Amino acid sequence: MIERISILGTGLLGTSVGLALRAAGFRGSIVGWNRGEEGAQTALAAGAIDSIATDGLQAARESQVVLLAVPIHATLDWMERLSCILGSEHLVTDVGSTKMQITLAAGHLFNTPERAAFLPGHPMAGKERGGAALGDANLFRGAVWLFTDDPAWQRSPHSNALVKGWREWVAAMGSKTLDLDPARHDELVAWVSHLPQFVATALSALLQEEVGDAPELKDVGGRALREMTRLGASPYSMWRDIAYTNTDAVAHALLALEQRLAHLRENLRTPELRDEFEQANRFRRE
Amino acid sequence: MIERISILGTGLLGTSVGLALRAAGFRGSIVGWNRGEEGAQTALAAGAIDSIATDGLQAARESQVVLLAVPIHATLDWMERLSCILGSEHLVTDVGSTKMQITLAAGHLFNTPERAAFLPGHPMAGKERGGAALGDANLFRGAVWLFTDDPAWQRSPHSNALVKGWREWVAAMGSKTLDLDPARHDELVAWVSHLPQFVATALSALLQEEVGDAPELKDVGGRALREMTRLGASPYSMWRDIAYTNTDAVAHALLALEQRLAHLRENLRTPELRDEFEQANRFRRE
Repeated sequence: MIERISILGTGLLGTSVGLALRAAGFRGSIVGWNRGEEGAQTALAAGAIDSIATDGLQAARESQVVLLAVPIHATLDWMERLSCILGSEHLVTDVGSTKMQITLAAGHLFNTPERAAFLPGHPMAGKERGGAALGDANLFRGAVWLFTDDPAWQRSPHSNALVKGWREWVAAMGSKTLDLDPARHDELVAWVSHLPQFVATALSALLQEEVGDAPELKDVGGRALREMTRLGASPYSMWRDIAYTNTDAVAHALLALEQRLAHLRENLRTPELRDEFEQANRFRRE
Repeated sequence: MIERISILGTGLLGTSVGLALRAAGFRGSIVGWNRGEEGAQTALAAGAIDSIATDGLQAARESQVVLLAVPIHATLDWMERLSCILGSEHLVTDVGSTKMQITLAAGHLFNTPERAAFLPGHPMAGKERGGAALGDANLFRGAVWLFTDDPAWQRSPHSNALVKGWREWVAAMGSKTLDLDPARHDELVAWVSHLPQFVATALSALLQEEVGDAPELKDVGGRALREMTRLGASPYSMWRDIAYTNTDAVAHALLALEQRLAHLRENLRTPELRDEFEQANRFRRE
């Protein structure tokens, strides 16, 4: 029943959703809007979208489902603009990496029987570099697509049907869906997603400063070094809004790791080091 | 000209060397000794060794090349025992992950015209778990095999020929060889190998404690989490001696990372975060 989708933001995620929808058999129209012309052209050439919209608002109005695939602050901006012009015949959803602020805005601006529905979403999939050119129909295969829907929201039956339809397309793209409370979401991803990223960034930046000009470096570093610094390639533009909208949880996780590293450092020659390795082994076993 | 090799320690590295030698066309004999019977039987069944020695010293005496593939403190013990019974017709070499103490011992105990040669070696290859069963003929393909040979050592011409021969077999196993000063070696691997390991251990141990029992955890964590914690599976037994024999360099690197993480934490909402990401990006680009 979903036949007209618009994707606002044809970067890595937006383009991948278009490609994954097509691969899953979606036969309706997919209109794409992108801030930069090049990303839209790349998504079009890849077959992720059928046409390029120059006016994102108009594209949204002509769609049943609007996917916001832009950074978090841009998502919040689009939500304000869209809430005024869309109604209960529309569903807006997003792919933002933090969900507290977006879910709060969704409660204020959407999700009444008269207004459009907004389903806050977050696919746990990505790459260390962005851009339409890396779009991948299989990006969501085997990943978890989180939703922070609020059961208390009263939507129109039509909106509810669109929400159900979109969840089915997410499953068809190969993702397992999981519903979380938005506060719990932001806390959990601070540990399992944001902390690993910021550690990789700090480690890569430190290594660049300390041994970046050592001629032996590239030779000596093996798979372990490559893995532990792969995320160091992630651009600031992808992470600025995450740091800004999940600051407390990320700071708490970083401080905990600093203390853990200090404990390990002080125990390099004591049996405490064994306990630390065994605790780490447990994480990988379970 | 090398026709008789003994491998003392048929764990992951010892077994992989046996398999890699065979894959590279080595047709001489390979005798294996292992502290545990099971590891020796596994290496034998895999074809990494031709026979199992019950007496490592005797196996060494009957070989031209003795490969020590045991933890660092065990390597130092073997060096003491072997130096008394071997002569200039022998070469001993090792695969230990720190090289300062082993290279100092090699200077005291070996490497005169009358004594056996000792070539300190360190292949930058491994897995997060050990054991003969994971032995892999391709483990060293594309890796760097470091040596911390001392040009001042005066060896017999026969020993020199064995050293040259062993370096050729290392190249035949697919590794690029690189010579480093032992102090420089230990400093460099503290940054590019030991620091990434201890970070992965601390991160895994912390996550086990904080979210190890969250039912959503395994679903939510994606590739980034798996990569950043893969080394968390490394056993204490593989790392105890490294922490013990490279303590100062590792502690220095850990402290530097703690400070870097604190700086990042204090700047989650300032433009300093951009600088940190850009510095990290540089590391991955170069």
